[in-house]
Amino acid sequence: MIIVLKKEATDQEIDHVVEKIKGAGLNVHISKGKERTIIGAIGDEEKLAGIPLMAMSGVENVMAILKPYKLVSREFRKENSVLDIHGVSIGGKELRVIAGPCSVEKESTLIDTARLVQKAGATILRGGAFKPRTSPYDFQGLGLDGLKYLAAAKKATGLPLISELMDPRDIDLMCEYVDIIQIGARNMQNFRLLKEVGLTKKPVLLKRGLSATIKELLMSAEYIAAQGNSQIILCERGIRTFETATRNTLDISAVPVLKEETHLPVFIDPSHAAGRWDLVAPIAKAAVAVGADGLMIEVHHDPENALCDGAQSLKPNKFATLMAELRAVATAVGRSI
Amino acid sequence: MIIVLKKEATDQEIDHVVEKIKGAGLNVHISKGKERTIIGAIGDEEKLAGIPLMAMSGVENVMAILKPYKLVSREFRKENSVLDIHGVSIGGKELRVIAGPCSVEKESTLIDTARLVQKAGATILRGGAFKPRTSPYDFQGLGLDGLKYLAAAKKATGLPLISELMDPRDIDLMCEYVDIIQIGARNMQNFRLLKEVGLTKKPVLLKRGLSATIKELLMSAEYIAAQGNSQIILCERGIRTFETATRNTLDISAVPVLKEETHLPVFIDPSHAAGRWDLVAPIAKAAVAVGADGLMIEVHHDPENALCDGAQSLKPNKFATLMAELRAVATAVGRSI
Amino acid sequence: MIIVLKKEATDQEIDHVVEKIKGAGLNVHISKGKERTIIGAIGDEEKLAGIPLMAMSGVENVMAILKPYKLVSREFRKENSVLDIHGVSIGGKELRVIAGPCSVEKESTLIDTARLVQKAGATILRGGAFKPRTSPYDFQGLGLDGLKYLAAAKKATGLPLISELMDPRDIDLMCEYVDIIQIGARNMQNFRLLKEVGLTKKPVLLKRGLSATIKELLMSAEYIAAQGNSQIILCERGIRTFETATRNTLDISAVPVLKEETHLPVFIDPSHAAGRWDLVAPIAKAAVAVGADGLMIEVHHDPENALCDGAQSLKPNKFATLMAELRAVATAVGRSI
Amino acid sequence: MIIVLKKEATDQEIDHVVEKIKGAGLNVHISKGKERTIIGAIGDEEKLAGIPLMAMSGVENVMAILKPYKLVSREFRKENSVLDIHGVSIGGKELRVIAGPCSVEKESTLIDTARLVQKAGATILRGGAFKPRTSPYDFQGLGLDGLKYLAAAKKATGLPLISELMDPRDIDLMCEYVDIIQIGARNMQNFRLLKEVGLTKKPVLLKRGLSATIKELLMSAEYIAAQGNSQIILCERGIRTFETATRNTLDISAVPVLKEETHLPVFIDPSHAAGRWDLVAPIAKAAVAVGADGLMIEVHHDPENALCDGAQSLKPNKFATLMAELRAVATAVGRSI
Repeated sequence: MIIVLKKEATDQEIDHVVEKIKGAGLNVHISKGKERTIIGAIGDEEKLAGIPLMAMSGVENVMAILKPYKLVSREFRKENSVLDIHGVSIGGKELRVIAGPCSVEKESTLIDTARLVQKAGATILRGGAFKPRTSPYDFQGLGLDGLKYLAAAKKATGLPLISELMDPRDIDLMCEYVDIIQIGARNMQNFRLLKEVGLTKKPVLLKRGLSATIKELLMSAEYIAAQGNSQIILCERGIRTFETATRNTLDISAVPVLKEETHLPVFIDPSHAAGRWDLVAPIAKAAVAVGADGLMIEVHHDPENALCDGAQSLKPNKFATLMAELRAVATAVGRSI
Repeated sequence: MIIVLKKEATDQEIDHVVEKIKGAGLNVHISKGKERTIIGAIGDEEKLAGIPLMAMSGVENVMAILKPYKLVSREFRKENSVLDIHGVSIGGKELRVIAGPCSVEKESTLIDTARLVQKAGATILRGGAFKPRTSPYDFQGLGLDGLKYLAAAKKATGLPLISELMDPRDIDLMCEYVDIIQIGARNMQNFRLLKEVGLTKKPVLLKRGLSATIKELLMSAEYIAAQGNSQIILCERGIRTFETATRNTLDISAVPVLKEETHLPVFIDPSHAAGRWDLVAPIAKAAVAVGADGLMIEVHHDPENALCDGAQSLKPNKFATLMAELRAVATAVGRSI
Repeated sequence: MIIVLKKEATDQEIDHVVEKIKGAGLNVHISKGKERTIIGAIGDEEKLAGIPLMAMSGVENVMAILKPYKLVSREFRKENSVLDIHGVSIGGKELRVIAGPCSVEKESTLIDTARLVQKAGATILRGGAFKPRTSPYDFQGLGLDGLKYLAAAKKATGLPLISELMDPRDIDLMCEYVDIIQIGARNMQNFRLLKEVGLTKKPVLLKRGLSATIKELLMSAEYIAAQGNSQIILCERGIRTFETATRNTLDISAVPVLKEETHLPVFIDPSHAAGRWDLVAPIAKAAVAVGADGLMIEVHHDPENALCDGAQSLKPNKFATLMAELRAVATAVGRSI
Repeated sequence: MIIVLKKEATDQEIDHVVEKIKGAGLNVHISKGKERTIIGAIGDEEKLAGIPLMAMSGVENVMAILKPYKLVSREFRKENSVLDIHGVSIGGKELRVIAGPCSVEKESTLIDTARLVQKAGATILRGGAFKPRTSPYDFQGLGLDGLKYLAAAKKATGLPLISELMDPRDIDLMCEYVDIIQIGARNMQNFRLLKEVGLTKKPVLLKRGLSATIKELLMSAEYIAAQGNSQIILCERGIRTFETATRNTLDISAVPVLKEETHLPVFIDPSHAAGRWDLVAPIAKAAVAVGADGLMIEVHHDPENALCDGAQSLKPNKFATLMAELRAVATAVGRSI
């Protein structure tokens, strides 16, 4: 930790800061320059986390030296983490595409959709049983029935399942039915939920919150890892900005930044970023080109009658066309799908 | 609902949209202009909520006419809602100040602080027992012990209590101990939590999310109200923007906007908005001047040793000085504290 | 224009609005529903532009039907505009790469760099003679000397030139030396500058402002086109958001949105978006995949000693490697470089 | 400057950074810790401004110690700057209110408005002669005629004038007619314009850009001061965020932050922040309470027929009522109007 004192800081103020740091068990190195006095705190920076150095009299600025995440950092583990989801590797050379409807509606159409996305090359099936909706008057998901339909689709196709967990009280149920637990953007800092999934052995797909920095996304992943579960997939799905032409603004640069900062696989969800099906294809191609490890795409057999997010869902035939295009881009950047 | 068709929309496309609207039980009024054809959907707009009109072929734009929130709207209830918290009215002519430490630490210091803020004019005591923290390695709150210390402080002072609920599994515990349940900014769209508090009879203070629009804040309040609990206080506490000089950017204009849109009381939390104790006083004065119904201010007996948010906490004597200043501003705008 | 009245709007208020609209020469269609009265203004919407309908008593909402830009809209011109810059087509099937240093420093090194980027496949040379710098104490560009060195590099290589115009007083000078005039992000709404370049015959590359919506970018292009100059290239270079891991947040989705809204070519500048040279390659590949018509990349022979933006500049050899990679991605999406 | 090296940085990389720093004429202090090596650059930090240390191999982070603005900083001048505009002091105990129409339209109505705002307590008259408009098809101002009408209003009332400069070619004209030159939000980083006004002796009101940080606002003020003109008034007028209920989001906390960072007076423009006349009064009261040195408010004799910004303009009688309310708030915070 580096502490910069104000130009007019008194000796007493400097001594007080030094005392605080030493009291926390660290050593100090003081450098008195012409313009500013600077204190370097040497030792375990974490011990200073709770001390409001910034608010102390005479202090102008405080800068951390170390990153606040550890287990998920590239420094902790140099090589990429590769997850194994019932034989489907995630984070390796091969990109993976998760596809399926926003929310589960009927068993028969879900199985049909599962077969079609599988045929097109998707290797994991998505489908919401519990749905976070902005309005209390909107469809909230089928709950347990939704999970059962997903299980039927898995049985029919062999595709592993991913579905969103919204409530810690549903965790056992989710663990019974799905292969990857999704933590949605709105729950990225629902720390109780993060702890719960951290205590399971299930892989977790953690979506970036609408206003979460990359650092905060990694801190939320650290919550999960700190409980003992390191099977985490990060997913960029657009952040909130002033631009309204798209539902959210996809932060495509987050992918190479994350690949440098962490060993965890990084996915992109072009459907939620765009909010419009006609933008999904170009954005998905960009996601492959930028180096994402996989994609999560909404596919619905009849978007006009979808109970949720129909505007951003692809029809199965459009999805199949897209998959062929994505393969070409993947090859161009030395990957495969 | 108004649907604007693209200039080149075909009759077939127009017919398809019309059919969809009629299928949902609404009537249509079609206006064919020189530049655009416009369809007005007449009837219950909600029935169109699930239909992705925007994604249909030939559609350029879709505009809702009605607001998506009802129970919390000013249209639903013209006069201000005034809550009664054990004799403390909220939402009336008198402003109310909630004060206390970010997190509960010790029983004795909490009681001392409670007495001091009460003496200065605060009428509700705050204190976190369960704390949402960005890092899994930070202090997470005392839990049940924290609630017990709060109860002791209430017994000593008679001040009603507010504390944050993070997990639906804690709701009975919270209802037993506190008088107002706080939903934190990170949980503003934790819809399960909203439903739970909506099912209780407890007043709820709902904080605006870091990237939540005013409309979304009202929709989250609607979630609570839709379950039968209309005792809701809204709280603006800063939104996330590009500016880093303050922890968040306080959206002061949200207060008059909310006072126009809803009958619910509106509070401001200057401590979290600023993130720096030296900015709390000017922002609090602005909050009173702009027409807020109350404030929520962090006060700690020894900020340098606080386990949480020490940088933004006022000492009790500074808080007392501020209260005197706030009274003068309140009087100037025809209110009282 | 659609005007939605408040539920409690009086007949007098409605009449007043109707009068205003008729006074501007438009007809009205009034629809009195159960919940709201809606007025449709039929005729030339532009005539209502100056009338503050929104502020009138009884008005709840006002929605424009037509887009505010005309000449640059896809509606005005269905096919893509293809510019011809001394034989280099822009906006066609072939992508174009603009490369060169942030600012011109020395004639010899500029010529060397020009030769190297040309060899690697760049077809236009960039270089700043007049530099907008956040600090008055930073290097501000060589001015006329910079333009002369650019001319020398053009003579040596045949590459057409692009450079930034900051001041209307420099326009004749710029027209004499360069082939494309760049309007920088900070000047996107410097309307006087836009008018000046609109009055020339020179192609213009217009960069999106840091906080400009896509609609505002198109309105600024309309400023240029309205003066008679339609040779405009739009350039996305990152917008300002809360994320600080990158210098700006590249809005990659802006490309397909713009391709739908306008017939003008759309470029991406990955260097300014990222602010870090190590992110330029992945972002550039994403830009090609998403459908951009070209790229603008900073290349410096010795970034560590660059007078400007060294941190985001590629060395010529890294640029050559990137060009080979970009060709592969271009082929994958049916384009070429 | 503090340079943090990556954990795996080699001695060669460290030596290279050290050499660069020494080459710029500074000394270094190297601290090799268990986790990181840290280099402190001792001496004139500015000499390192152009060196892309961040991009060098082995470097993880670079932190500046000193603030990039000097002349405008509180460190440079401890006491508040008080400007004298023909006898009207700005920056002292008395708050000042600038009022008048968005754009000058007619001489007679301007004089009427000037008399009314003067009677209500405004001490400076505003009025746009050159108007920055998002659309090329909107009213662009009366130009020279506008300045002449302003002069007539000044003659009639004695009120000093403020008007916006958009083009360096108009500077002589502006200096002839107005007493304060306004630099609009869109031109906050039009560095050529800043230099021009810096070379005059005229007071300048500098508005914060829509996406400018407080630091950047101060850097733009530094541009003006660096040319020799320190008569600068800063003006917060709302920043761009995701919230659309108001035209912009007023950053009210910017006032106390600026008062700490700089000796210059700080104004607030509630009209542009809100974009709606009905929000102007509460926001203006908040501005006085938070400690602003003055306000800039749009007043129009007939907002419904204003050629510009009618929606956010107050009628003279509403303005007079507001002034009385503002006086009460000013008194409450120990100021006067």
